[in-house]
Amino acid sequence: MTDTFSFQINATDGAARTGAISTPRGEIRTPAFMPVGTAATVKAMYPEQVRATGADILLGNTYHLMLRPSAERIAALGGLHKFMQWDRPILTDSGGFQVMSLSSLRKITEEGVTFRSHVDGSQHAMSPERSIEIQGLLGADIQMQLDECVGLPCEDAEAERAMRLSLRWAERSKKAFELQPKGRALFGIVQGGAVPRLRVESARALADMDFPGYSIGGLAVGEPQAVMMEMIETVEPHLPQSKPRYLMGVGTPDDLLEAVGRGIDMFDCVMPTRSGRHGQAFTRFGKINLKNARHQNDPRPLDEESDCPALRDYSRAYLHHLIRCEEMLGSMLLTWVNLHYYQDLMRGARAAIAEGRYADYKAATKEGWARGDILPWTGE
Amino acid sequence: MTDTFSFQINATDGAARTGAISTPRGEIRTPAFMPVGTAATVKAMYPEQVRATGADILLGNTYHLMLRPSAERIAALGGLHKFMQWDRPILTDSGGFQVMSLSSLRKITEEGVTFRSHVDGSQHAMSPERSIEIQGLLGADIQMQLDECVGLPCEDAEAERAMRLSLRWAERSKKAFELQPKGRALFGIVQGGAVPRLRVESARALADMDFPGYSIGGLAVGEPQAVMMEMIETVEPHLPQSKPRYLMGVGTPDDLLEAVGRGIDMFDCVMPTRSGRHGQAFTRFGKINLKNARHQNDPRPLDEESDCPALRDYSRAYLHHLIRCEEMLGSMLLTWVNLHYYQDLMRGARAAIAEGRYADYKAATKEGWARGDILPWTGE
Repeated sequence: MTDTFSFQINATDGAARTGAISTPRGEIRTPAFMPVGTAATVKAMYPEQVRATGADILLGNTYHLMLRPSAERIAALGGLHKFMQWDRPILTDSGGFQVMSLSSLRKITEEGVTFRSHVDGSQHAMSPERSIEIQGLLGADIQMQLDECVGLPCEDAEAERAMRLSLRWAERSKKAFELQPKGRALFGIVQGGAVPRLRVESARALADMDFPGYSIGGLAVGEPQAVMMEMIETVEPHLPQSKPRYLMGVGTPDDLLEAVGRGIDMFDCVMPTRSGRHGQAFTRFGKINLKNARHQNDPRPLDEESDCPALRDYSRAYLHHLIRCEEMLGSMLLTWVNLHYYQDLMRGARAAIAEGRYADYKAATKEGWARGDILPWTGE
Repeated sequence: MTDTFSFQINATDGAARTGAISTPRGEIRTPAFMPVGTAATVKAMYPEQVRATGADILLGNTYHLMLRPSAERIAALGGLHKFMQWDRPILTDSGGFQVMSLSSLRKITEEGVTFRSHVDGSQHAMSPERSIEIQGLLGADIQMQLDECVGLPCEDAEAERAMRLSLRWAERSKKAFELQPKGRALFGIVQGGAVPRLRVESARALADMDFPGYSIGGLAVGEPQAVMMEMIETVEPHLPQSKPRYLMGVGTPDDLLEAVGRGIDMFDCVMPTRSGRHGQAFTRFGKINLKNARHQNDPRPLDEESDCPALRDYSRAYLHHLIRCEEMLGSMLLTWVNLHYYQDLMRGARAAIAEGRYADYKAATKEGWARGDILPWTGE
């Protein structure tokens, strides 16, 4: 354990890196996938189960938590870690992204943003300072500056305006963050839409401010994967090599493999949890949609060689039945399957980078997805 | 292990009895509470968790399973135990009760009942023989005769007609059951509404047929608890002492304590699972409604002395938050709490009967509920 925040790279393989972020609440092995615990719970999972899949860190959503049960209430109860029974690191977003995507009657000014809650219509204000205050009340180990994220495609001028505003908010966030206890970290967020010169300007300006880590925001907002990868390649050379890079809100297993290969260290996404609740399993054989009627008589588990009970012990026919009947156990098992797979993918990536065989790992993993099940079950 | 079905009474205390039912799939300690696994899952629980609360046996609902995924499909997949990953005993109902309460366009004749599925409107027929066939396909260890259950209050003539029909169906069910493998048991079901002479007639006629166990049906259908207890007291002397008695669909913790004291050995009820999903916790301090705003700042767990993580590790404020946000983890934790409590109640009853102090146990347990929390939390 340490009382400071630090990042150590243990090995590189091309642009890919593996290492560890040290925090007072524990180590985060990178590349790392962070399960999303929106409302102080990773949906359909017990916290110790999430840990057992290999997660070193969770993500909490500032927007949701400020509305329910409120940052002040969580602080009075001893902070988010204690509230949700997760004693390892937590990263919080700034709330900005979900203010934009979920709330109503939004008004953005230089000062910040006012909006109405999607839950009860109540009026709220968010500024860089208030976002950091909330994240501090929650007790987040890694916090995000408030930024403005534009959807893609987007006019260059609009992307530029939002990027510049985000830089000014980065300065204000950094100043507000100085009040917080040692050992926590604030990340700056690169914006700039799909415009390379704006992305470079944003990355350089943030690097000059010397953050302990850098997020790449404004991607996975509707653009093709090729654009996402182009933006990562554009930005990467301008971010300090010695600091962790976090690609926000990404993504599919394929996105993760590609982005790790381009030097990304951290990810979060609702995909494994949300897809699980909708009957989709991510496995080494690719995506399997358990809602599909072809599984209804299939006695095979998803992966009999797995060490995860959700993959090993329950037949596809049973999982299909649970999903069709909208039984909670279906969501519980498939969320477990998916979080297990995402962590497996990161475990494999870390080992491969350490051994200098990341390209092979990526290719072999994709081959597994493409091949699908070794022997499709043909029925009785 | 044994290859036959048998019941042994180890101790009695007044009318209360404690013992064990032996089956080829394991022992059922009595008095026993059976969690309800309607659609081949105890809602919001992993099967190994259900077992860990102390459950020796689950209940499956024939009506739900015949509609989805169908008895034939479950049989082809190796039976209900394998399907739902529960290798201990399973009791199934006949399907009759839920045909009456859930399906539409029902038509009852001497032969059986036709109805339309509440799921997709498909047409189905159920007879005593078909019910037993389905329960056999599921592989249920303890099966129920098809009966007709009337709601209360009810005209005497109607209760009499349904009771007589149920007796004729008992004969047919028994005959159909002869085809099944050894080691399984079929229970007859006492009916007769709230009319003592009908209940006595039903119990005597079933006892003459010599079933390995007897259910008391047609209670917990709207009548006051006093009527339920009067009917149990009426029926009990006419049931063979050496056979298990199962009070169907009952009930509250108080109902269980009272019925155990009147010689009942087995219970099932959706109350602990359904109430859990609706934010209600059953504890040794009585019922606690976690939806109530008075819990929103309460840092105390439900019971810090409990060995159940759901009771011990999570604050009431957190449980309140989860229920308010309709998070699955709220249902998962409170279902766990409630199943744990129901099993605790039965564990305590068994020990108390064995030691000849059941009346004291009942009184002390009710005192705990009435006293409530020792120190109501008064806020910050």
